[in-house]
Amino acid sequence: MIKPSTVPGTMELLPAQQLAFDKMIDTIKKCYQNSGYTPLETPLMEKSEILLTKSGGETEKQIYFAVPTGSLGETEQLPKYALRFDLTVPLARFVAQHENDLSFPFKRYQIQRVYRGESAQKGRYREFYQCDVDIIGKDNLSIAYDAELIALIYRVFTALQIGKFTIQINSRKLFKGLFQSLDIDEETTKLVMREIDKLEKIGEEKVKTSLQTWLSSEQTEKIFAFLNIKNSTNPLQELEKFAPNNQIFAEGKQELEKIWEILKYYELKSDFFQFNPCIARGLDYYTSTVIETSLDEHPQIGSICSGGRYENLATHYTKSSLPGVGISIGATRLFYQLDALGLINYPENSSASVMIACLDEKYLAEYIQINKILLENNISNFVYWQADKLKKQFKFADKSKVKFLLMIGEEEQKNEEITVKNLETGEQNNVKFGEIAKYLLNYL
Amino acid sequence: MIKPSTVPGTMELLPAQQLAFDKMIDTIKKCYQNSGYTPLETPLMEKSEILLTKSGGETEKQIYFAVPTGSLGETEQLPKYALRFDLTVPLARFVAQHENDLSFPFKRYQIQRVYRGESAQKGRYREFYQCDVDIIGKDNLSIAYDAELIALIYRVFTALQIGKFTIQINSRKLFKGLFQSLDIDEETTKLVMREIDKLEKIGEEKVKTSLQTWLSSEQTEKIFAFLNIKNSTNPLQELEKFAPNNQIFAEGKQELEKIWEILKYYELKSDFFQFNPCIARGLDYYTSTVIETSLDEHPQIGSICSGGRYENLATHYTKSSLPGVGISIGATRLFYQLDALGLINYPENSSASVMIACLDEKYLAEYIQINKILLENNISNFVYWQADKLKKQFKFADKSKVKFLLMIGEEEQKNEEITVKNLETGEQNNVKFGEIAKYLLNYL
Repeated sequence: MIKPSTVPGTMELLPAQQLAFDKMIDTIKKCYQNSGYTPLETPLMEKSEILLTKSGGETEKQIYFAVPTGSLGETEQLPKYALRFDLTVPLARFVAQHENDLSFPFKRYQIQRVYRGESAQKGRYREFYQCDVDIIGKDNLSIAYDAELIALIYRVFTALQIGKFTIQINSRKLFKGLFQSLDIDEETTKLVMREIDKLEKIGEEKVKTSLQTWLSSEQTEKIFAFLNIKNSTNPLQELEKFAPNNQIFAEGKQELEKIWEILKYYELKSDFFQFNPCIARGLDYYTSTVIETSLDEHPQIGSICSGGRYENLATHYTKSSLPGVGISIGATRLFYQLDALGLINYPENSSASVMIACLDEKYLAEYIQINKILLENNISNFVYWQADKLKKQFKFADKSKVKFLLMIGEEEQKNEEITVKNLETGEQNNVKFGEIAKYLLNYL
Repeated sequence: MIKPSTVPGTMELLPAQQLAFDKMIDTIKKCYQNSGYTPLETPLMEKSEILLTKSGGETEKQIYFAVPTGSLGETEQLPKYALRFDLTVPLARFVAQHENDLSFPFKRYQIQRVYRGESAQKGRYREFYQCDVDIIGKDNLSIAYDAELIALIYRVFTALQIGKFTIQINSRKLFKGLFQSLDIDEETTKLVMREIDKLEKIGEEKVKTSLQTWLSSEQTEKIFAFLNIKNSTNPLQELEKFAPNNQIFAEGKQELEKIWEILKYYELKSDFFQFNPCIARGLDYYTSTVIETSLDEHPQIGSICSGGRYENLATHYTKSSLPGVGISIGATRLFYQLDALGLINYPENSSASVMIACLDEKYLAEYIQINKILLENNISNFVYWQADKLKKQFKFADKSKVKFLLMIGEEEQKNEEITVKNLETGEQNNVKFGEIAKYLLNYL
């Protein structure tokens, strides 16, 4: 006998939870679709050379390679295929591969699982869902798309009903321009941005201390003067005080102002989004807008939806200039965290609303007749086929979370009636065969 | 530069095809849900010891193992994790693992991809979708569930609208009983069933020849007398002529008769299902009912939905008796084949029905106002944010397969009107801002 168990760091849900998870995914998908994003699914496996194009040693250490039985033990070369660790690399490969078949701006959503060869520990997933949308332009892409994505985040999390959230927005161009004006080189800029990313976690003092490894006190102070405008009433207006003659800083400022103008038209509630100069997003590929989203009452969860703009998606595969902007929701981690906080909206019913009990097998014809009538009226239902004790069937109906239990026995068959029990209210009624769909539709 | 390409033997679709594929999956899913099956998703990776429990050397040769970067080159032992090659092994593991949390009969659907380390060749997939439903009982499971699944197959393929199909049904118990009565041992029975499976492909003569490796002419003739009842008017009635005193044969006959009785209540069109004594299903684990489904006009496709009953699902993990019955649709292969035959119903529209053109950025407020009104009315739509030449925008709308193009310029803004072009009919109308949702809903 083998003990049945799953691979650590993966998610597997029991039916009630799975239904709730599916409902969450469906809500996200519906929002994406309604805004004109087309679906994309890419194969789980990519050629290893493609997955390894992404710079940064961390990633390479976390890849799962796919090795077929026949190739086990071959040590001389890298396995040919590996599992995707995000949806951005496959998107870049896809867009470059099908550049001539796509219309730009190409708007796609992709809801698939990704894989990381992490050591298993609490909160670390080896397999998790990402729900991404990206818009890829050719040669150029209006900044309005960044605003569209912010409005989309607003709609998604409003629809999910998980409490008050704040979308925090910044532009990497501000950092880049400010640091240029302070004579900080590009290499140091990256290191500094990574430290700034830790601000909320470790606090101002610790970040200041580590910045002084590379920077003068004056540089550090100027950076913090910039970061601290987040506390002013209108932080966007404060920007004019910084890096006055720097081109890139000015671009970042203009882009943010344009985004704010468009968000005004969207009439989002103003306390749901804010300019936050402290948002850096450690990942290298963002080049201007960066976005994070947090739940106001549960800041410990961290960002529940992040993204940003990158100036060129697919440099490894094509000479075309393909600027893009995208966001991503890590649905697996989000689901677990929301569930732990009691914030998941569990569906009231299982996938069927009605169970037809089996009082005696001699009424199978009637059970099937009702089953068919309900299906024709789009009422999900099933027959419990075994004439088990009624108590057992009630228990089953209860655990299956159906809303109605239908019973037909001798009396009912004679009168062409059904005994209908509403399991939520306990109410019980007799309903004619021909009226059953109408009756149930009143409640469903 | 790296040439962007996918792993051979995997499916990747362009947007229009992906929409059609998603529509197919949604149809299947909806049918499964409406009959009260709950969703299940299992992790891609299983522990290797679990995947290797399935008997049969073929499978072991085709497994992809998942090897993280840090473990590359370790040759001494089998990798710990591997990718699932079907959905039945994960189901067995899941049910055994959560036996105490589930209510039986446990009805689940599972629509996920599976992986085979096949050498890539035409028509062989290394990654493909399976759309499975199974019902698992505890200790016993009414034969009515087999009939329910046949009715479900009927509904699924009727809903998919891919032409006339036939569900072919047999019971392995007939083979087992018949062969017992002919003194053929169990080992030979398996070999013979595998040959019978090839009947349609290679013809009666060749199968007869290979059967004579193990059987006498008399045995072979008696088997073919049995197989040939499929040509009689009522093959089920012919069964009484065979294996008269064999218990298992009698059970098979009774079960089929019970299934036929129930199917009568379902009122399926009778030419959509038939008893076919030639259906063997090579896989070892089926023990009674076996089911195959074929398209009448495209027999070369082979079975588009197969399944059957197994007397015990999870013997490797638990001593509980867990009989089950299930069916599976191989959606990836099916989609390709239907697409090649022109049988795929492509959705008329992309994921959005309406595009709002950008005549001038100064009307962004109006564009967003309309975008919001439509979303509130559940009309999928998007703004084309860049004031590109109208010709380019028309082309984009056309390629995106939206149904309506909405335009607001100077004149329209002044009159609070929208120019609405129906891209399918070419019709063009002016509609007041406040009436746009009502107007479009008439057509959508």
